[in-house]
Amino acid sequence: LQYSDRIKNLTGNAIREIFKVISKPGVISFAGGLPATACLPVDKFKEYSQQLLQENGAAMLQYGATEGYYPFRECMAGFVSRCGIENVSTDNVLIISGGQQGLDLTFKAFINKDDIILVEDPTYLAVLHIAKTYQADVRGVRSDADGIDLNDLEQKIIELKPKIFYIVPNFSNPTGRTLPVQKRQAVAKLGEKYGVLILEDDPYRELRYSGSHLPSIKSFDESGHVLYVTSFSKTISPGMRVGAAVGAAEVVRKLTIGKQAVDVQTVTLMQAVAQRFITSGELDRHIAASVPVYESKKQAMTQAIARYMPESYSFSDPEGGLFIWGETPGKDCKQLFATAVEQGVAYVWGSEFYADGSGADRLRLNFSNATHEQIDEGIKRLAKVLA
Amino acid sequence: LQYSDRIKNLTGNAIREIFKVISKPGVISFAGGLPATACLPVDKFKEYSQQLLQENGAAMLQYGATEGYYPFRECMAGFVSRCGIENVSTDNVLIISGGQQGLDLTFKAFINKDDIILVEDPTYLAVLHIAKTYQADVRGVRSDADGIDLNDLEQKIIELKPKIFYIVPNFSNPTGRTLPVQKRQAVAKLGEKYGVLILEDDPYRELRYSGSHLPSIKSFDESGHVLYVTSFSKTISPGMRVGAAVGAAEVVRKLTIGKQAVDVQTVTLMQAVAQRFITSGELDRHIAASVPVYESKKQAMTQAIARYMPESYSFSDPEGGLFIWGETPGKDCKQLFATAVEQGVAYVWGSEFYADGSGADRLRLNFSNATHEQIDEGIKRLAKVLA
Repeated sequence: LQYSDRIKNLTGNAIREIFKVISKPGVISFAGGLPATACLPVDKFKEYSQQLLQENGAAMLQYGATEGYYPFRECMAGFVSRCGIENVSTDNVLIISGGQQGLDLTFKAFINKDDIILVEDPTYLAVLHIAKTYQADVRGVRSDADGIDLNDLEQKIIELKPKIFYIVPNFSNPTGRTLPVQKRQAVAKLGEKYGVLILEDDPYRELRYSGSHLPSIKSFDESGHVLYVTSFSKTISPGMRVGAAVGAAEVVRKLTIGKQAVDVQTVTLMQAVAQRFITSGELDRHIAASVPVYESKKQAMTQAIARYMPESYSFSDPEGGLFIWGETPGKDCKQLFATAVEQGVAYVWGSEFYADGSGADRLRLNFSNATHEQIDEGIKRLAKVLA
Repeated sequence: LQYSDRIKNLTGNAIREIFKVISKPGVISFAGGLPATACLPVDKFKEYSQQLLQENGAAMLQYGATEGYYPFRECMAGFVSRCGIENVSTDNVLIISGGQQGLDLTFKAFINKDDIILVEDPTYLAVLHIAKTYQADVRGVRSDADGIDLNDLEQKIIELKPKIFYIVPNFSNPTGRTLPVQKRQAVAKLGEKYGVLILEDDPYRELRYSGSHLPSIKSFDESGHVLYVTSFSKTISPGMRVGAAVGAAEVVRKLTIGKQAVDVQTVTLMQAVAQRFITSGELDRHIAASVPVYESKKQAMTQAIARYMPESYSFSDPEGGLFIWGETPGKDCKQLFATAVEQGVAYVWGSEFYADGSGADRLRLNFSNATHEQIDEGIKRLAKVLA
């Protein structure tokens, strides 16, 4: 059997592989991106799913439209006004099976082999994996604590003629950084000026611990060049696989044609449950209850870092999201991973987040799915490994 | 914005588009492939989902493995013994988000642009749509009431060197035909002999009204050249999006790497619900209760056809599944579709099921989602349109 060029030499997404390695007992994992178990709203999920099956069970179990469950699309058209996206009709909304499907469908709709995709350096590792399945040429754009370097972005757009620029504006995975408002507006303008699709991936927005919510890049889009992707994986449940893509009707239509082919539709009951979380007000109550949990875990980690880590290393202190980004000059975090797992702690090494595979002396730490005690003990172990 | 070559000229899957046209009140639809509303097991679905959320709610809502929920993979490894597939381990099982995802992931893993895929003539229309999204070259193999023409199949394998041969062995969509046992064995052998992946899509097996269950093509596979895809869309719920692909561990691994990119995982709760339907015995009880419902609808349709249709037309009389296939010499069923909808009846015209777009004088009728009265009235209207 001969596999396709896109898949024959492709190893799995690193995170999904790491999951298997670290399942041995006693390993404290900072590798995943799992919501805290305590923040999974099991009771309300049960209540709403029962109500929906009671009220309209056949519709929940029957086939539905690829575009999504109509009442939920209407709901989402209004929901995104919270990040400044206005005048949205159902034609602008595609319901997707988790936020990541939005990235896959966008690449399916836009990317030919060898087309250029620009990403932040570093970027969400799954986007690099997805890009490989489309044989895209992914290039990194410089980024620092103040977000993307606009000059480098514009220069690379002119030089490389990318189809897509992918960015996580709020509490970026892996760095935890947030893009300032002025840069959001500038990114939207660059998309319009050069005809580049801005793919704005925003799964973490609601998990803000301090500072104020910022308008999305999409909110500055006047020409349909920004596609906004959101997800309920971090605010309700990742296992339910529900998200939404919001963009120009024509772009949404192309994604829909792709979605017809890949999974026909997103699970109807899960869409309706997400809708009920929103319309009942429970989503916002639940977020308000979850944020302090995450914030205190983040504080536990920054405190443990201050306690155990050498001063020559630097770690981010994000205003939200699930990740802290570490720079550990002189240490190869990929090479040290096996030792770390032996010592009972896991993370994701930096080179998984760079388009060019650099970043070996960096690492991503997740704080959302460990206890305070595990965080303290895990950072202590990690400091030893990195010493 | 410049779309990809695969998507820029692609119109939607015809069925998903027809759904929109026929939503006007009063139209009797034989166009879909929807299970009967009365055969959707709402009460048990509610009971099991509640139990699962009660017992292990956090695991149901948290991230899970791309390969699938482990207990369900184990369950499926045993489940397929009912169609003669033995010695299956969890490494041979990938849980998928509906049967159709198995086709998409298989094409992702095997098909380069311009690679050849062989299909039955006529075949499942979605497979033609999916193939277009991989820019595959799809060719039809002759098929009649006795199933695929083995000589034509072998000759086309030799001549065209296809990567994949796709076949629905039980109650094929659209023809309702079933492949005899000897041909199943022969197809498996041809896959091995020429190194062609046999993609066996089997969503309708359990909906058998008469005759005996036959062993799957996969049950004759000694070399790992057959990939078996099954689904719970027709036996539990299409809206739940749960199926499984069973094949050689290496093939399953390649599909898994693709699935990491497209949707991360199938909804955990839906997997666990499907498992409980199986392990409780309810799946088989439910199938036993559903089969007479479908059989009587099928009989209503064959009787109405006998009553209203001219003898010069021929219609299949399947032993199971959801579809009747009609041949209406001299009539262009695509051209007549608008008139039919005006007259209050809908179907899918034949050319949607042929790789080369032929089959204009054929049509597919679905009987599973209409009442007996609607079936009689709808066939009467259709006979007028086709007169």
